[in-house]
Amino acid sequence: MALSYAIIGTGGIGGYYGGRLAHIGCDVHFLFHSDYEFVKQHGLQVDSVNGNILLPTPQAYHRTQDMPKCDVIFVSMKTVNNHLLKDMLMPILHEHSVVVLVQNGLGMEENLSHEIPHASIVGATAFICTTKVGPGLVHHAEYGTLTIAPYNECDINVLQQVVADFEKAAVSVNLGDDLLSIRWKKLVWNIPYNGLTVVLNAATNELTFNKDSRQIIIDLMTEVVEAGRCCGAKISDTFISKMIGMTEKMTPYSPSMRLDYEAKRPMEIETMYSNPIAIAKAHGYRMSKTEILEKQLRFIAATMY
Amino acid sequence: MALSYAIIGTGGIGGYYGGRLAHIGCDVHFLFHSDYEFVKQHGLQVDSVNGNILLPTPQAYHRTQDMPKCDVIFVSMKTVNNHLLKDMLMPILHEHSVVVLVQNGLGMEENLSHEIPHASIVGATAFICTTKVGPGLVHHAEYGTLTIAPYNECDINVLQQVVADFEKAAVSVNLGDDLLSIRWKKLVWNIPYNGLTVVLNAATNELTFNKDSRQIIIDLMTEVVEAGRCCGAKISDTFISKMIGMTEKMTPYSPSMRLDYEAKRPMEIETMYSNPIAIAKAHGYRMSKTEILEKQLRFIAATMY
Repeated sequence: MALSYAIIGTGGIGGYYGGRLAHIGCDVHFLFHSDYEFVKQHGLQVDSVNGNILLPTPQAYHRTQDMPKCDVIFVSMKTVNNHLLKDMLMPILHEHSVVVLVQNGLGMEENLSHEIPHASIVGATAFICTTKVGPGLVHHAEYGTLTIAPYNECDINVLQQVVADFEKAAVSVNLGDDLLSIRWKKLVWNIPYNGLTVVLNAATNELTFNKDSRQIIIDLMTEVVEAGRCCGAKISDTFISKMIGMTEKMTPYSPSMRLDYEAKRPMEIETMYSNPIAIAKAHGYRMSKTEILEKQLRFIAATMY
Repeated sequence: MALSYAIIGTGGIGGYYGGRLAHIGCDVHFLFHSDYEFVKQHGLQVDSVNGNILLPTPQAYHRTQDMPKCDVIFVSMKTVNNHLLKDMLMPILHEHSVVVLVQNGLGMEENLSHEIPHASIVGATAFICTTKVGPGLVHHAEYGTLTIAPYNECDINVLQQVVADFEKAAVSVNLGDDLLSIRWKKLVWNIPYNGLTVVLNAATNELTFNKDSRQIIIDLMTEVVEAGRCCGAKISDTFISKMIGMTEKMTPYSPSMRLDYEAKRPMEIETMYSNPIAIAKAHGYRMSKTEILEKQLRFIAATMY
């Protein structure tokens, strides 16, 4: 079967993965926000370490009401706009559509399942350094693996077809069955690095190689691992040193929250910090160090304009 | 008896208190660093809410070797230079000299007592908003109470004479007997406000009135109170709300660490953060929130030049 895809939020993430699928001939429908007019005229370009892509005439839309119903819907917009998601999705959902949330943080699947109870929802994390650097222009610098796992009842055949399509597009996909662990493991990196690059105004390498900020990172990672385990996530004892080692080898990088901050866009504090803190608390664990970083970020967000 | 005074470090604190004593005719010898030549030519000026002072020809020195031995020595230089203190003090100490450390943090008296075992040492905290705003020019904006308490064996007659001299100079002085509690109570304010004004680049009022930074402040204050109590300090349950209430009424203010940061001078991280953390740890209490702030400050200090 040939799946139809929608990309809701064509930025660094959506532009890269959707671009790869369209490049091999998949039926991909892209939702654009501010870049719509530009892309209609000039197309969508992905400059990638794995080979450049130019889609001269992508199926581009400015609102979901104009899009067809799709089999697989990748949501790659910022979670700060998730309150709009239900209304955006309704026009493009058919009875068996699968919604894949490629987003940062925790709690997004649960929120959406309350809003659209019949929807098949999948969570995904992208291990990738990719950024929208200009209108219709995505720059993919490093990595690219997508990890996906169902949140509720999903047609496994559809998910396997998604994996097959991505394989054909040279994108590595892990299809897992433990979304909780996937989300918490992503937070082990996201919580220290996203927040500290903003608060300390520094890139990932500076934070990793200075001994004091490195110690904060390790302390925060340890807290996230403990919190995740209290919530039922499976995270190995060596995971923290693996994350630090991986970051040491990374090209210096500004995580998404720092890019948002520098561009004076809203930061994903709610899903990346407040939700994990609240969920851990409900399981009896207080993330007291993460709370400090969360509140520092909220202060910065309140005074950044 | 008429006491002779030395002021070691004539900045905002030393200039104000020494200036008040000299103004009423006390025998005060001021040590200047970069301002020495200016003060020799133009004098020392203190613009104060309690009345301005101009000392046209203060007893000014550039090095302690040129100063007479003094009865009471106020040390009001930054603790980042305390490794120089022993050599600076030796020329001006006589057998009964009393050294008063008007400094921020913890552990300064103990360090000095190891370096000069026979010295009578007194600790002091200044509750005051005063700043050196230019060469030989001190601006005193608010408050002014000095709290002093002996660290080791001291001639109580000398201390009472100091209190009497200050009273004559219209400076309110509390002579206490529990230096440990005085130092920790000062830290309850200093630890959150000094560090956060630097890390979040904000003044005291912004931090106090934003609900997120206010919560960090309360959490840090709570941790300092708990740590202090573990070390034997007596701090009442209402002290935190008293400090917050006091700060709400204060004129917006940049604490000393923020001024140091902005002027690219070394910050007093060691005595204000690392020493309390280490001393609390030795008493079985881990200041885990303060540790984050300490390490953020160390990162900033390492990258500020």
